Amino acid sequence: MKNCIFCKIVKGEIPAEKIFEDEKHFAFLDMNPINSGHTLLIPKKHTEYLFDLNENEYSKLMLKAKDVAKLLKNNLKTEKIGLIVEGFGVSHAHLHLVPINNQGELTYERAKPMSKEELNKIAKKIRE
Amino acid sequence: MKNCIFCKIVKGEIPAEKIFEDEKHFAFLDMNPINSGHTLLIPKKHTEYLFDLNENEYSKLMLKAKDVAKLLKNNLKTEKIGLIVEGFGVSHAHLHLVPINNQGELTYERAKPMSKEELNKIAKKIRE
Repeated sequence: MKNCIFCKIVKGEIPAEKIFEDEKHFAFLDMNPINSGHTLLIPKKHTEYLFDLNENEYSKLMLKAKDVAKLLKNNLKTEKIGLIVEGFGVSHAHLHLVPINNQGELTYERAKPMSKEELNKIAKKIRE
Repeated sequence: MKNCIFCKIVKGEIPAEKIFEDEKHFAFLDMNPINSGHTLLIPKKHTEYLFDLNENEYSKLMLKAKDVAKLLKNNLKTEKIGLIVEGFGVSHAHLHLVPINNQGELTYERAKPMSKEELNKIAKKIRE
């Protein structure tokens, strides 16, 4: 969709640290991570509300979330991966996959901008 | 599992406002809701980490989350339903399904205990 930041990221019109891509999905690092390695997974097709995806699209996206969570957990040596879906930031459905260790609540109050260099370093670690 | 609060809720040993139940899943109201109608969906089988469920168990749970989200959205006339999975409260994998209207971040800081009467009233509205 025109003027959708995430659609632009998918098309390569806005740069992002890509973690994963296949025909239907795209995963990249959040520039304001709650924790290091905080990743956004989106369906390429512009859909505003996650639960409006049809059963097949939704199931594939959720299984992809499981794969990306495994990748993050293994390559970042984190204890667990949390999952957040909210409704009111970018209007393109997205799943937050956030590495968690035992540090309490996953809250955006802890989110901080990360430098491009740092993001690139972490993305390399995840992708390797 | 012995001493697991959620296993006890499934067995009826601890009361909860049930929203939904089938052979493999159980959904009930969170007693400390972030917003009214905040529901917990769990697999009946005790599993600590969501992403440790096998592909089939995980997919079925996620599709059930879509169903419960639809039920909450329709019966509570809310705009959207958010989804949160964290790692460190009760050690039995659970999905938070939280009705959201345009009021900002889903954060546990907003969570407040709700009376049994109020919980019962909301549960009835969801189940009807």
